[in-house]
Amino acid sequence: MLPKLTQKQTEVKRLGIPKIDSPLKLSTQISLHSHVLYNPYYQEKNKDRVSFEISIPENKIYFDPKKVTAGIVTCGGICPGLNNVIRAIVLGMHYNYGVSNIYGIRYGLQGFIAKYELPIIKLTPEAVSNIHEIGGTILGSSRGEQPIDEIVDFLEHQNMNILYVIGGDGTLRATERITQEIYARNLKIAVVAIPKTIDNDIAFVHRSFGFETAVDIATQSIQGAHAEATSFPNGIGLVKLMGRHSGFIAASAAIAQRDVNYVFIPEIDFDLDGPKGFLSELKKRMLSKSHAVIVVAEGAGQKFFEKQNQEKDASGNIKLMDIGVYLKDRITRYFKEENIPLNLKYIDPSYLIRSVAANTNDGLFCATLGQNAVHAAMAGKTEVLVSNWHGVYCNLPISLAISQKKTIHPGERLWLNVLESTGQPSFQND
Amino acid sequence: MLPKLTQKQTEVKRLGIPKIDSPLKLSTQISLHSHVLYNPYYQEKNKDRVSFEISIPENKIYFDPKKVTAGIVTCGGICPGLNNVIRAIVLGMHYNYGVSNIYGIRYGLQGFIAKYELPIIKLTPEAVSNIHEIGGTILGSSRGEQPIDEIVDFLEHQNMNILYVIGGDGTLRATERITQEIYARNLKIAVVAIPKTIDNDIAFVHRSFGFETAVDIATQSIQGAHAEATSFPNGIGLVKLMGRHSGFIAASAAIAQRDVNYVFIPEIDFDLDGPKGFLSELKKRMLSKSHAVIVVAEGAGQKFFEKQNQEKDASGNIKLMDIGVYLKDRITRYFKEENIPLNLKYIDPSYLIRSVAANTNDGLFCATLGQNAVHAAMAGKTEVLVSNWHGVYCNLPISLAISQKKTIHPGERLWLNVLESTGQPSFQND
Amino acid sequence: MLPKLTQKQTEVKRLGIPKIDSPLKLSTQISLHSHVLYNPYYQEKNKDRVSFEISIPENKIYFDPKKVTAGIVTCGGICPGLNNVIRAIVLGMHYNYGVSNIYGIRYGLQGFIAKYELPIIKLTPEAVSNIHEIGGTILGSSRGEQPIDEIVDFLEHQNMNILYVIGGDGTLRATERITQEIYARNLKIAVVAIPKTIDNDIAFVHRSFGFETAVDIATQSIQGAHAEATSFPNGIGLVKLMGRHSGFIAASAAIAQRDVNYVFIPEIDFDLDGPKGFLSELKKRMLSKSHAVIVVAEGAGQKFFEKQNQEKDASGNIKLMDIGVYLKDRITRYFKEENIPLNLKYIDPSYLIRSVAANTNDGLFCATLGQNAVHAAMAGKTEVLVSNWHGVYCNLPISLAISQKKTIHPGERLWLNVLESTGQPSFQND
Amino acid sequence: MLPKLTQKQTEVKRLGIPKIDSPLKLSTQISLHSHVLYNPYYQEKNKDRVSFEISIPENKIYFDPKKVTAGIVTCGGICPGLNNVIRAIVLGMHYNYGVSNIYGIRYGLQGFIAKYELPIIKLTPEAVSNIHEIGGTILGSSRGEQPIDEIVDFLEHQNMNILYVIGGDGTLRATERITQEIYARNLKIAVVAIPKTIDNDIAFVHRSFGFETAVDIATQSIQGAHAEATSFPNGIGLVKLMGRHSGFIAASAAIAQRDVNYVFIPEIDFDLDGPKGFLSELKKRMLSKSHAVIVVAEGAGQKFFEKQNQEKDASGNIKLMDIGVYLKDRITRYFKEENIPLNLKYIDPSYLIRSVAANTNDGLFCATLGQNAVHAAMAGKTEVLVSNWHGVYCNLPISLAISQKKTIHPGERLWLNVLESTGQPSFQND
Repeated sequence: MLPKLTQKQTEVKRLGIPKIDSPLKLSTQISLHSHVLYNPYYQEKNKDRVSFEISIPENKIYFDPKKVTAGIVTCGGICPGLNNVIRAIVLGMHYNYGVSNIYGIRYGLQGFIAKYELPIIKLTPEAVSNIHEIGGTILGSSRGEQPIDEIVDFLEHQNMNILYVIGGDGTLRATERITQEIYARNLKIAVVAIPKTIDNDIAFVHRSFGFETAVDIATQSIQGAHAEATSFPNGIGLVKLMGRHSGFIAASAAIAQRDVNYVFIPEIDFDLDGPKGFLSELKKRMLSKSHAVIVVAEGAGQKFFEKQNQEKDASGNIKLMDIGVYLKDRITRYFKEENIPLNLKYIDPSYLIRSVAANTNDGLFCATLGQNAVHAAMAGKTEVLVSNWHGVYCNLPISLAISQKKTIHPGERLWLNVLESTGQPSFQND
Repeated sequence: MLPKLTQKQTEVKRLGIPKIDSPLKLSTQISLHSHVLYNPYYQEKNKDRVSFEISIPENKIYFDPKKVTAGIVTCGGICPGLNNVIRAIVLGMHYNYGVSNIYGIRYGLQGFIAKYELPIIKLTPEAVSNIHEIGGTILGSSRGEQPIDEIVDFLEHQNMNILYVIGGDGTLRATERITQEIYARNLKIAVVAIPKTIDNDIAFVHRSFGFETAVDIATQSIQGAHAEATSFPNGIGLVKLMGRHSGFIAASAAIAQRDVNYVFIPEIDFDLDGPKGFLSELKKRMLSKSHAVIVVAEGAGQKFFEKQNQEKDASGNIKLMDIGVYLKDRITRYFKEENIPLNLKYIDPSYLIRSVAANTNDGLFCATLGQNAVHAAMAGKTEVLVSNWHGVYCNLPISLAISQKKTIHPGERLWLNVLESTGQPSFQND
Repeated sequence: MLPKLTQKQTEVKRLGIPKIDSPLKLSTQISLHSHVLYNPYYQEKNKDRVSFEISIPENKIYFDPKKVTAGIVTCGGICPGLNNVIRAIVLGMHYNYGVSNIYGIRYGLQGFIAKYELPIIKLTPEAVSNIHEIGGTILGSSRGEQPIDEIVDFLEHQNMNILYVIGGDGTLRATERITQEIYARNLKIAVVAIPKTIDNDIAFVHRSFGFETAVDIATQSIQGAHAEATSFPNGIGLVKLMGRHSGFIAASAAIAQRDVNYVFIPEIDFDLDGPKGFLSELKKRMLSKSHAVIVVAEGAGQKFFEKQNQEKDASGNIKLMDIGVYLKDRITRYFKEENIPLNLKYIDPSYLIRSVAANTNDGLFCATLGQNAVHAAMAGKTEVLVSNWHGVYCNLPISLAISQKKTIHPGERLWLNVLESTGQPSFQND
Repeated sequence: MLPKLTQKQTEVKRLGIPKIDSPLKLSTQISLHSHVLYNPYYQEKNKDRVSFEISIPENKIYFDPKKVTAGIVTCGGICPGLNNVIRAIVLGMHYNYGVSNIYGIRYGLQGFIAKYELPIIKLTPEAVSNIHEIGGTILGSSRGEQPIDEIVDFLEHQNMNILYVIGGDGTLRATERITQEIYARNLKIAVVAIPKTIDNDIAFVHRSFGFETAVDIATQSIQGAHAEATSFPNGIGLVKLMGRHSGFIAASAAIAQRDVNYVFIPEIDFDLDGPKGFLSELKKRMLSKSHAVIVVAEGAGQKFFEKQNQEKDASGNIKLMDIGVYLKDRITRYFKEENIPLNLKYIDPSYLIRSVAANTNDGLFCATLGQNAVHAAMAGKTEVLVSNWHGVYCNLPISLAISQKKTIHPGERLWLNVLESTGQPSFQND
């Protein structure tokens, strides 16, 4: 239904052959892709290209709505939008398909296990009416594994034929095993996952719910750090943000304000010491501009702790160190040695980023994810998760999503934008 | 750099062949696309597929930064993010390319015209430091055409070799003519546009800046309407939202809350009277649920005014009528005739939606659009605008973007989501 | 418990006797009070001064919590914080006094009347857990009178011995009559009111709940108007705000930003025409500054409609006119006649101001009002409302609060602050 | 101008003499005041009562606006609203008095001292136009003392005759000494202070600017803690808030939500161990309710560190300990010993609370404080600060404000409200 275009129509004019070198020295080679397809949808004639199934309500469904008993469970850490997704599933099941037996499982996978004695909660449109206004999950959550067979026992005992799982990497692995057990028992239970990761690090999922809200709150922290840094002589605002394996929150929040001078993420190595290291660069900046804002993702610079931990091993006192606190200490010590006064303010918004209610755009996103999860389940799709790929809602096998982690590639546009925004060098002595 | 996948890996499991009809009766046929490409980037082997050039900073540039004099102009209605885009251009020119001669043109195209005697404004990093915190445009704007040759005269007199234009459909048409005049005079001036439309209705541009902020504010209006509707017996909250030719704001805001019962947009016809018309459906709902929330885009239902205007023509008193007020009056009259008491609250946020500062996610978007506009200009690209297609920033010829309007297609996912959320029928007697 | 002070300790030093006239020409005489008492609490030795009873929990109470059945009703227009007050009453009754029979009356006074067939709602801590996050009232409301004897019949039939009424001037009058009927029947029912008025116009009540939130939203409208006004040549932003008899919202919102140039409120007369009238002053400003922001309370300038209404009377078509639309039309016409181009944007946030959830500070205020209402009721106080006087929570007889309206006095600090902020003259030809 | 009232009119009706004991067992005796004066303003007939001079613009002023050179300085930690106050002073001086020589002193008291070589900044209406939208202070600030005589030298050299000082307790003490030096040199320089304390702990000042914004952000932290606590089995949300000597932020934020179960402030002693200590109470709650929200002001429980510090003294390694971290560790250890699983989330918003821009109500407050500071200075008042007492803006001698600290009294309404909201006992073994 896209209007017809020719390649000629898309070609951009130029004044002439560029003649001089760009002064924009990004610390990374630019590469990757040069063009994006106008029509990125599957077409008969290009059947060799791999594609994802787009999420749509199907005209024929597998389950008789009157015979459906569905369960919803939320697992792992909380994330903005959990309640929105729960609400969307309940409203979609109820209003679009006429399903009325919908139950919430309490406290994540624990809710399936008899010994915890956790009752299930009946979920109705009234019960979920306002839950999208509050953070966390009304169902409760928990971390950790539970025996897969007991989980499937529970589904059998409760006569559930649809299970919605909202969780992250670990939960998706458990869900994968749950589906295997369901197949092994030859049960007709559809299992549909909605991937949850505030770090936005699930593979083959461009955007995860709650991420934009997280960036929103992270940006407020950076604004605070900037206010602190510019309000004092030699002020430094140092912000630690979530991001264990991927720096998406840190990178995105840094671009939004362009008030950030240095960003450190798990994917990109950096040195603190040495002539090209961060500390001497920071010194240069402080002497010329007298303020700086630094953002560090919690998973960045783990290499600094390898030695530390080993050292500590000897004294029998192993402790996972905190890169935020570590940077704060290193910077403070360095400037003391250099005899330069400093006003460093350390800001760690920690749980504040994940415990708020979803913002409007995430609300819209969660609502659509929930709707699509319902369509997938009612059509009898299973072992499936609802993804968003290049802005298109689609269904993926869970196995695919857990086959790897999504991280920021140094050559991709997001990181290049960070480098452009901050102007930071590579911080690597070699 | 995408990991290799096979189609088999992307295939979704199903419990069995669906056997029964879905109760989900959407008033529109579902069609369009079934799969989205995993890799939507251009590849040698599929060179027949049309693609858009991805925005990147190039290693070789056309302009010597020291010799650049750049102008920025904002035209047409205001939109959240205008100041963010101005700021991003200034910061990008200054910090990434070392350009220091950057000027703001006052009050849109009027600023080019001698008779208005409007001075240009020097734009520095300090001058734009906090402007992203406020709505509107610090440069000022205006509507309406201006003589193209005088505009180009101005560029020549000011010795400008880069012009950034931030504006909507009409402005892009003027910009197109400006570039033609520049070619005719054989000048070396790069003209780069950033498309501005709060209605998100520019063709070949998936997302326009300020749109998400607009949806954000629109959603607050809907929350207000919902509070009014549910707080009174037979309460109706009727909200009019921006959207002259396209209902993107109305549709998106309606999905986010799922508290909206009826959405009317310019793209979809509807009847008020008759057995399948909206009024009799609304009556049914009020009798059973006793409250309703209605959202109408300003461009919807224009057919109702064709007659009206003709009538008025005779009395010499032509006035463009307001669909919001019209609906309010029709509903009020209808329920009076039906002898059903009503508490209708009409909410028209009007300019409130476009005059706020950009929210975080729009801030991030504007920052990147501005950066990319700078890269395009410095590389000597011209008659070009910065677009976003399936989440990828890319460059389009302006001529392409003005070749048609973007509207909501009744069969596309966005509208189907609205129908799912509201459960509204087609409101067409035939 | 206030530390002892002598008057001498409070005396402010001055450099010398002021010698010159102040250039600050406020259009109103300054008068009223010169000093505020350090200790504004009642003391034995000044027993002649009138005082209000401070709200406190008493050690001895009238009702046995186990035998209490309480009702809560919300009446009239909605206001930010209604749900917070409901929540605070329920939580206070439950947790502080152990009362468990608490019921919500639906849709205001209608809920008492048999013919409406409205069931009461059981209110528990769980039921009200998150209601403060949403606007409106979960109980519903309605306007208009209902038979007092049927209301008291209802209380008798339901065996209610405490009634909490949340409503405005009209509701307080009805409440007063309800208490008279209760006395006449010799019933032991405590009736406690929490005054509700978004206009902040109830007498002997310094601050009413929801008012600060209303000012908050009103201020956003003014920011929008300012962005519009400054973004266009000869831009005018005209904002109409709530305030039928009192201009508290308009005055307060105008001071907060100091971007407002003219404020019109019901309490202060003004002329549009003539040499000192508003239109000629506005013309002067537009010619010199080329933008203006105007705020008008809905009850201002009603004198302009007296004639209008009389005219309309003849044609049998009386309609209350809208001062916002009237000003918009008059300004537009005037500048057209003066041949000065204009960009006037009219913003009417209407219900948006009253339908939002309470902000934090109002949440705190509502929580305390609700707690104090509970203390008053449990102690057997009746025909009483919870007020706030000079920052102190206190109890007033309802009869006192309805004995007059609270308005802005031209000589009081609030209006003087408006005049200082705007610099506006008196706009009176004589 | 207050309407006449008799005491009889203010008397509240009661159903009868209360007969039974209240179940509301507050851990503190209620006392203090029973009535608030209707008219708390000074009257001739009660001339024996101590009063504060109300802030008003005077008709006669001391300084000739054309000859005024004014300086503004911000000192100490940042606080929401600093820029609003700066803006209000500049706009008031410029528009109300026609003063155009207004300068900002950089980085607090350092800006007066030659060796720091900090230039002053010219402040115009344009320069301060949007600064209220950002946190921090555009002038910069610093902590610590500077030589008083050099400060006065600076004022003399710059020919400044008005100095506005925005700062806290320490700054007010320095200001007091500056005025003494000014008197000693017989200079005619008016020194006016606006008290700044995010903790709201300056004596004889009921409300300090930025406090409500701080409570706003603090409340968001508590909402986050509540979401965490209720989303996990045995979830505890522990929030540390600002408040070195006074717990106003912690107490106010706790009341607003009523989701807080325990509040600890510097003014109220508490035990952790023992039968009535906090830990055993917390255990009881966790076993029955399985979640808890705890708020602790940073200055609370310092007694726990006295021993700790002494211990550390020996090893020569003194470090002020953190009550938040201490509580977290003690709770964690206690529940481990008790063998009860726990999900404790520790949230320390730290600088986030003070670095945001002021909210609307604080904006209104800052605007009025600034206006009043200008009136005081122009009238030649000196050694004075602008206070707010029972909602009335008034002028106090600085000496009075620094004569003591303001703290929460255990018997005052604020703390009683906390006890009512939380239901917490006294936590004191004796």
